[in-house]
Amino acid sequence: MKINTTYHLEDSFPEKTDEYFINGILQGNRFILSEAITMVESTQQEKRNRALKILKAIQSLESKSMRIGITGSPGAGKSTFLDTFGTMLTGLGHKVAVLAIDPSSKLSRGSILGDKTRMEKLSRDPMAFIRPTAAGQILGGIASGTKEVIDLCEAAGYEIIFVETVGVGQSETDIVHLTDLFCLLILPGAGDDIQGIKRGITEMADLVLINKADGDRVLLAKETAKYYSMGLKLLHGRQSGIQTKVLTCSALTGKGLDIIWKEIMHTFEVMKESGWYLTQRQEQELLWFDQMHKQMILHHFLQKHSAYNYIENLRSDVINKKIPIYEALSQLTDSIKQLG
Amino acid sequence: MKINTTYHLEDSFPEKTDEYFINGILQGNRFILSEAITMVESTQQEKRNRALKILKAIQSLESKSMRIGITGSPGAGKSTFLDTFGTMLTGLGHKVAVLAIDPSSKLSRGSILGDKTRMEKLSRDPMAFIRPTAAGQILGGIASGTKEVIDLCEAAGYEIIFVETVGVGQSETDIVHLTDLFCLLILPGAGDDIQGIKRGITEMADLVLINKADGDRVLLAKETAKYYSMGLKLLHGRQSGIQTKVLTCSALTGKGLDIIWKEIMHTFEVMKESGWYLTQRQEQELLWFDQMHKQMILHHFLQKHSAYNYIENLRSDVINKKIPIYEALSQLTDSIKQLG
Repeated sequence: MKINTTYHLEDSFPEKTDEYFINGILQGNRFILSEAITMVESTQQEKRNRALKILKAIQSLESKSMRIGITGSPGAGKSTFLDTFGTMLTGLGHKVAVLAIDPSSKLSRGSILGDKTRMEKLSRDPMAFIRPTAAGQILGGIASGTKEVIDLCEAAGYEIIFVETVGVGQSETDIVHLTDLFCLLILPGAGDDIQGIKRGITEMADLVLINKADGDRVLLAKETAKYYSMGLKLLHGRQSGIQTKVLTCSALTGKGLDIIWKEIMHTFEVMKESGWYLTQRQEQELLWFDQMHKQMILHHFLQKHSAYNYIENLRSDVINKKIPIYEALSQLTDSIKQLG
Repeated sequence: MKINTTYHLEDSFPEKTDEYFINGILQGNRFILSEAITMVESTQQEKRNRALKILKAIQSLESKSMRIGITGSPGAGKSTFLDTFGTMLTGLGHKVAVLAIDPSSKLSRGSILGDKTRMEKLSRDPMAFIRPTAAGQILGGIASGTKEVIDLCEAAGYEIIFVETVGVGQSETDIVHLTDLFCLLILPGAGDDIQGIKRGITEMADLVLINKADGDRVLLAKETAKYYSMGLKLLHGRQSGIQTKVLTCSALTGKGLDIIWKEIMHTFEVMKESGWYLTQRQEQELLWFDQMHKQMILHHFLQKHSAYNYIENLRSDVINKKIPIYEALSQLTDSIKQLG
């Protein structure tokens, strides 16, 4: 595991009891919630196991939360959008969490400070909780940890969870598997190529939001919305039965945010009535269980035999074409046998 | 592993030497190629390891083949298309292999006979090799085996490999990771919803082929092509740099197939010149190596501890909501520790 942990202020809680965490989280104590998240994100299996124990105790069996994924190219205004939209929602009485997934795991480069600046209003809001979350990887696997962080936040009473991705790697695909609804934030203007939106992302969106529809960009934003609506007509056959909507807004002036909120609430109603909300959550849980159990076994095996380096070296040899792939797999087969 | 092997006429070759396989395959002997494929698809690790050894010996380091993925909804005419198109290609002097991935692994239900009927001309063509291939899964993992079968076919001299998927599960996503070019075959008519095309598939296609553009459907096919071309304009920013093309054809009359072949050849030229052909192949090899090494370790661990049933039961309990997911993971953590 290669999770960068340099941003953790405190990484071990030997003196604190499980009850300290369980009660603290259930009471919505943000400091204790933060500590628990640090535990989930730990590189040490022991701490992760303890986190699992706590999660077992606090897991709500009937989550009614809204998990909303947000992505968009750099410059689309994700931070301003989350700041303004989140503040609107806390103003309506909702507890809001914003989890920013950083798949490069380089949170030490000042992301926390970054988040405070990025979401100025929301970061000072007692009804809001903002946290960057490292997407832990075991040997090139999928993001782990974020699912646990979502569950911790929900147990602490946050009923609207935004999972934001910075758009690197396969983080978008990951948040689709972690959220109920997926929003793509784009700029007024030309097609995906100009905006740097990756292939496949537009199709995954339940909501396409054209941000910065203010000033002299209002008309362009409307044209962009029309353009995307037309293109998205191709995407009828969605599993959820939800037709992707395209809306315009201005995170700067707040215009259109109320309509977006109404649309989101409406979509959740439809999803709950049709059963999709629960079906999708169950599918996600199973997918996550499969990823977790495989990761656990792999990790256990590789750690027990101190074989992480061995695998990494074999991978480099394959990447650098030092050995053909079947040779590498053949070597691996022999090694596994010897390890017993 | 749950690969159904009842369709294997012969499943073990104790008396046959590695040289028998290696020479036979390199000489293009179709019977021996078939035997080797059966070995690759075996449920027995020992046979798979032997197959690995053979693959190691025959692996070509500079494959110049065309690996073409084909998908489409049932009724789009995939079989007729492959039959007519494949026959055209063998007529041009190419050796053609058609591998049909069946992710449900229920090949015993007469798929081989099915394939003979499905591709009547091609199945009698000495320049062609048709084979259904079970998408082997280890505990819900990705399709394995097909990559090896592709390599075996290429070593036997088949320079054009079609990988066809029947459109179940995530097989389409899998063949994107196994092929250079991905074709979607659709019918003249309305949008994806009517055609039963899954979300995300259209975006992955390098070529959209409107089949059955014959008789009174010629006009409708042209309109469909226009409709898709418009929609696909949204998808500029593709990693390969290739803009998805939409073409019409009739597998029945053969009309349009020559243009499709020209387009495919042109696309491969572009991909080879830009370096994308090699880049993508390398990425695919690495992805496959990662999947393989994880599968090997998991399989080794689970088999050694006879833990397959244990995991399956835990999964069922999660699916049937008998135990919460964190409880299941907690139990697993304890079990792994005990297994040592």
